Amino acid sequence: MNQITNLLEIKYPIIQGGMIWCSGWKLASAVSNAGGLGLIGAGSMSPEVFKKHVNKCKAATNKHFGVNLPLIYPHIDDIIKIIIEEGIKIVFTSAGNPKKWTGFFKEHGITVAHVVANVKFAKKSEEAGVDAIVAEGFEAGGHNGKEETTTMALIPTVKESISIPLIAAGGIATGRGMLAAMALGADAVQIGSRFASSVESSAHENFKQKIIGTIDGSTKLSLKQLIPVRLIRNKFLNSVEELEYKGASKEDLLKLLGTGRAKLGMFDGDVDEGELEIGQISSLINEIKPIKEIFKEIIAEFEIAKKELSNIEF
Amino acid sequence: MNQITNLLEIKYPIIQGGMIWCSGWKLASAVSNAGGLGLIGAGSMSPEVFKKHVNKCKAATNKHFGVNLPLIYPHIDDIIKIIIEEGIKIVFTSAGNPKKWTGFFKEHGITVAHVVANVKFAKKSEEAGVDAIVAEGFEAGGHNGKEETTTMALIPTVKESISIPLIAAGGIATGRGMLAAMALGADAVQIGSRFASSVESSAHENFKQKIIGTIDGSTKLSLKQLIPVRLIRNKFLNSVEELEYKGASKEDLLKLLGTGRAKLGMFDGDVDEGELEIGQISSLINEIKPIKEIFKEIIAEFEIAKKELSNIEF
Repeated sequence: MNQITNLLEIKYPIIQGGMIWCSGWKLASAVSNAGGLGLIGAGSMSPEVFKKHVNKCKAATNKHFGVNLPLIYPHIDDIIKIIIEEGIKIVFTSAGNPKKWTGFFKEHGITVAHVVANVKFAKKSEEAGVDAIVAEGFEAGGHNGKEETTTMALIPTVKESISIPLIAAGGIATGRGMLAAMALGADAVQIGSRFASSVESSAHENFKQKIIGTIDGSTKLSLKQLIPVRLIRNKFLNSVEELEYKGASKEDLLKLLGTGRAKLGMFDGDVDEGELEIGQISSLINEIKPIKEIFKEIIAEFEIAKKELSNIEF
Repeated sequence: MNQITNLLEIKYPIIQGGMIWCSGWKLASAVSNAGGLGLIGAGSMSPEVFKKHVNKCKAATNKHFGVNLPLIYPHIDDIIKIIIEEGIKIVFTSAGNPKKWTGFFKEHGITVAHVVANVKFAKKSEEAGVDAIVAEGFEAGGHNGKEETTTMALIPTVKESISIPLIAAGGIATGRGMLAAMALGADAVQIGSRFASSVESSAHENFKQKIIGTIDGSTKLSLKQLIPVRLIRNKFLNSVEELEYKGASKEDLLKLLGTGRAKLGMFDGDVDEGELEIGQISSLINEIKPIKEIFKEIIAEFEIAKKELSNIEF
């Protein structure tokens, strides 16, 4: 038991990242059933679809689950209305100002965590009254911070700047990664890539195959002029870089990006023309497995590595 | 005792990075005397200066110490001649092909480690016959890899690709960082930034003050068209970025860089116009301290964090 397992009422200090196009009710309920915290990723859902996922998730687990809500979501009021109506008790917010909604959620008895990539926003989030911080390093998949601070550097630096519980994200897929994050001072970990590649992930099979095929250097933090995002190198990423090399403007990049690139790649399975968001640690993931098995492996490896460390003597 | 402490005959699995303009005989001997492995950084020394440092280091410690040798060094034959003549028994090579010199060093009974930033070169180094690999993540100061793989992702990925001992570098400055690296599978750590800021470092006082003043986001991996190098943001780095923004060629950048930028900043103390190589983890370093005290702190924190981890129960 620690601050995070108490706060979120979970067995293991493992949170499933609320990833667009990957984390619907199947993944969230499987993670909660396995003893972690599952999050429905609202970022890629219409309010109607979101409501369906919440109801299916309730039917699939009697454990807690939460919602990941990017604060730049266009119809945020509709999603928040559903969160309140459906009695969701945990919300992880990201990509926006934590001061805007935290007070409202807290008034409704909701536990709030906010995702940050630097110390400044960690402090801002604590001031805003969130219950926990997710600090996400440069190696993480998807949207990322401009400072490019890695998990190894970010976690201890955020840790000494705040006094609320801290969840580490970025570069964590295994029991060893989890142990390392906790050695750095994290109370829990948020895992993305490994769960995106799971059987229960709603990602397209083609995208899952791409994930398990990555090696070190397969991903790149890209589109830095817009919002930096870590992607698997493919035809689309090459087109982005060609444009950038020619001195493309934001407008040129937005035009190439268009709408629906992430859905195209991650949900529809066009792994050439689509945007494939994944973290660097995908280089360690070699098989598509069910969540239950993934949890078993992570915990077993954590225990072995913990014992190894405890035997170190100088 | 583990593979690295046995191989290098040291008490603690802590190696001091052989950094240009920071690691002369004073730093190397202090680290070896404190129970780690000190390395004289040959990269910024003329053969004459290097020879003096080797002799002074021998006089200052009766422990082992080694040499860091960038394989792109222009007068490498002269340095290697001195290494052999002076009976140096440990060489860390970097920035070049490990196949070129490893055989020669091994014939002379020298223990060789090679610094890499990706799996491909880790395998190449093992094939070349090196005794250990240093895998250095994106967060490290100074020269860096094009893949931008962070320590959290790089260490476990390299670990499963090689069977010789592994030293983690990048983002490690404290006992917690060391414990995290060992949780990820490293047998030892190489520490740069923290030692660059020490009393015994030959860095200019102005540079040391800059190091302890950094916060998260103060450094940037820059000059990617030439060799990527992590620097503290200052007037010089701003000039580089202005040129790059205008679509500068390699030649334009080389002209701005000129010769002696690193010496200017790190050794002569011009912190505006000079190149200031340091890692992201400098955000955790707030005081200039003697090596003996730094070792004491690292080991004490390592033991506390190790105990904390061993108490985790689910």
